[in-house]
Amino acid sequence: MDFDRIILGIDPGTNVMGYGLLGIKDKKPHLIVMGVIKLSRFEDHYLRLRRIYERISGIVAQHLPDEVAIEAPFFGKNVQSMLKLGRAQGVAMAAALMRDIPITEYAPLSIKQSITGSGGASKEQVANMLKHLLKIPDEKMPALLDATDALAAALTHFYETGKPKIAAGPKNWAEFLAKNPDRIVKR
Amino acid sequence: MDFDRIILGIDPGTNVMGYGLLGIKDKKPHLIVMGVIKLSRFEDHYLRLRRIYERISGIVAQHLPDEVAIEAPFFGKNVQSMLKLGRAQGVAMAAALMRDIPITEYAPLSIKQSITGSGGASKEQVANMLKHLLKIPDEKMPALLDATDALAAALTHFYETGKPKIAAGPKNWAEFLAKNPDRIVKR
Repeated sequence: MDFDRIILGIDPGTNVMGYGLLGIKDKKPHLIVMGVIKLSRFEDHYLRLRRIYERISGIVAQHLPDEVAIEAPFFGKNVQSMLKLGRAQGVAMAAALMRDIPITEYAPLSIKQSITGSGGASKEQVANMLKHLLKIPDEKMPALLDATDALAAALTHFYETGKPKIAAGPKNWAEFLAKNPDRIVKR
Repeated sequence: MDFDRIILGIDPGTNVMGYGLLGIKDKKPHLIVMGVIKLSRFEDHYLRLRRIYERISGIVAQHLPDEVAIEAPFFGKNVQSMLKLGRAQGVAMAAALMRDIPITEYAPLSIKQSITGSGGASKEQVANMLKHLLKIPDEKMPALLDATDALAAALTHFYETGKPKIAAGPKNWAEFLAKNPDRIVKR
């Protein structure tokens, strides 16, 4: 199919990175392909980063997405894991930045909310809703839910960019906190 | 000068990124060039990342370094700043990874130790020692010490790669902790 617009969704992780390509035709979203980049077999941190760069830039070169949507948590367990996650994200982003493709980030909660209507939905619920919304046949559903998470980021971006600007959710942590001062936990 | 080996040192930051190129000729290090990439004028996080990618990949294309040395703290103030730092590092690393250039990380303390003999040295002391060691004329000394910090990473890499393997310092946080169990603060 010749799409009007292609959105690449990425769920970056340091062990498994998910990706999902969504094609838009006549304002309707269609699954192009989704999958995962398995990184756990590389013990070396740099080999993992290189693998991410190679695969994401390969996907970008093959499908030429117009936009990239990334699932990005704004907080994490500890500074060490956030540094590593930041590197994985940075390397994946570079593959898009080098081709001037705009990147938008969505918090995991916003993605779940956007796809299922509930920020507390499980990964399985997100996957099932995607299967329903995009009419994905059983045999095309992935074994690893990092792939559906990535596709969910792409579909969220499609929904968000179709909304009037005023309805858009917070794009970052600072904006989220500014809009939700009661969510700041003071210790 | 036709160098036997070129080392690119990077001091990645989200406001200023320093770089320094060291040329090795007959086992002696020489300054090629050093400078900074100023990022604070870009408010947008992605414009900063793109600027880092463009500048670092430009420097790599122009000078074709054989190795990259990065000053990398293994811990930081909070998860937010570490995620941003990780992204800046990841984007800079991608510029080296895409050309198969090996990357080595050095902790700030190891760099200070290696250049001045003291892990507690100031940035000014590191800069002055580099000036002395590499016979850098006054007019080539930079205004921003992110440049000398980056050059210090490159010179540390030159020293470390000349040493027998057994004398090498810890290359990562896990190794550092394994060697320095008393530095683990239990809360």
